[in-house]
Amino acid sequence: MGVFDSGLGGLTVARALLNALPNERIVYLGDTARVPYGTRSAQTVVRYARGCSEILLERGVKGIVVACNTVSAVAIEILRAELDLPIIGVIEPGARAALAAVRALPALPEKLPKIGVLGTTGTIASGAYPRAVGQLSTRYEVVALPAPLLVPLTEEGWIEGEVPRLIVRRYLEPLIAAGASVVVLGCTHFPLLKNIIAEVAAELAGHPVPIVDSAEATAAVVAEWIADERLAPSLGEHTPAARLELLVTDLPASFSVVASRFLGADASHVTQVDLNAK
Amino acid sequence: MGVFDSGLGGLTVARALLNALPNERIVYLGDTARVPYGTRSAQTVVRYARGCSEILLERGVKGIVVACNTVSAVAIEILRAELDLPIIGVIEPGARAALAAVRALPALPEKLPKIGVLGTTGTIASGAYPRAVGQLSTRYEVVALPAPLLVPLTEEGWIEGEVPRLIVRRYLEPLIAAGASVVVLGCTHFPLLKNIIAEVAAELAGHPVPIVDSAEATAAVVAEWIADERLAPSLGEHTPAARLELLVTDLPASFSVVASRFLGADASHVTQVDLNAK
Repeated sequence: MGVFDSGLGGLTVARALLNALPNERIVYLGDTARVPYGTRSAQTVVRYARGCSEILLERGVKGIVVACNTVSAVAIEILRAELDLPIIGVIEPGARAALAAVRALPALPEKLPKIGVLGTTGTIASGAYPRAVGQLSTRYEVVALPAPLLVPLTEEGWIEGEVPRLIVRRYLEPLIAAGASVVVLGCTHFPLLKNIIAEVAAELAGHPVPIVDSAEATAAVVAEWIADERLAPSLGEHTPAARLELLVTDLPASFSVVASRFLGADASHVTQVDLNAK
Repeated sequence: MGVFDSGLGGLTVARALLNALPNERIVYLGDTARVPYGTRSAQTVVRYARGCSEILLERGVKGIVVACNTVSAVAIEILRAELDLPIIGVIEPGARAALAAVRALPALPEKLPKIGVLGTTGTIASGAYPRAVGQLSTRYEVVALPAPLLVPLTEEGWIEGEVPRLIVRRYLEPLIAAGASVVVLGCTHFPLLKNIIAEVAAELAGHPVPIVDSAEATAAVVAEWIADERLAPSLGEHTPAARLELLVTDLPASFSVVASRFLGADASHVTQVDLNAK
């Protein structure tokens, strides 16, 4: 399987895929030279997404996971129309998991629970989550709010303590106040803050609030597809240690530290690829 | 004068230039499609800086202010070698102003005061500030620490209250503990947090700590150069309201809100330029 993201956040999806697919080889491309996509125009994001997909196609992947909410929100239909292999985004699996979570809540006679979503400014502005939920059910309202500071916070590694707790609280307050009963982590960076988000959401709501991790939801969808299609494993002669190939478009000094944090494993072996011509 | 930056932070420099040069027209280019440069390799930054300079040269500017610490740190000598007009960075003026500030402090017989610098990860890793200070004086030690979260914090507009205060404190504590007696704002975003930085630094040090704003220091250097060279004003027939031309490479929806915050004035008139071929 191929996986790409604007940067390193998508490694949380690669991690979930490695866990869910023990017989698959994963090629991960992080477009670190052009990160972040979240603040860019749809037109620019589409162009970047095409370039990333080409690199993965050249490596012979059987499917592409778009581990980037921004690309999933604005470019996935174009990629599906242009490319002749399955393209799996992170938004539809997240929306599906959110609906499952909200339906599992105890029934409240007076009102239906709402689905809360936190994401980057670009993802939220695209309206992709309300649209994806609306395709599956028209009974549940979606409250989606941007939480852009959580991205640099996780990249800086400030994932414990007072600072992330205060920032998470500031983003969750309006979400919980608006009636969100589950919270979707609508950005691949956010699983690193999952515990704090769960704790603060429970404090604000006065009861536990289910947190939907779209990385795990996406890996589950990919595993199901591979099983359904009875696809041959791509592991081949690769040892498990070589199951992840890491490609990046830029090589900042801090790459392996940040990448290891998202991947939850060593990320020091990495190849730089040139996307300028794409 | 031409001014460029990886994004919108350099508008704090454009603002200082507009104040310092009432008869000059300013062309500002923000490479918003490729922001941020701070995490990219030196090679990538050089390539981007060339593209930005070309756009400004096509507009007939008499000099270029590199309002980006990352470019000033890693690419300014290359630009100077390649281009036939004055290139003014933000680091040398900041270093000069820092030395003036540290020399103005009351003399301590037991030890010399140190110069503290906060900047992006890329700027600090480049060692540009210690190098620039070392070119001017070998008597003062420089303590330079990365403060990357301050960039998204200012872009999000969280420039008052508990969250920025806690984050600023976390970055200033090791700087003040290491003996910094002045603090250089080594990133064009940081002037928006100048008051909080000054307050927290004074709390930590137990006395006021001079804060050096490299945007203002750069504008002063440009004003001096224009006066020394007796250059004709570029204002021409432009009214003061048309003194700033704003160019960007991408147009996110939130552009004018964020730009106005950095510029301290309306920033709704903007032209998009294409840098892909550069």
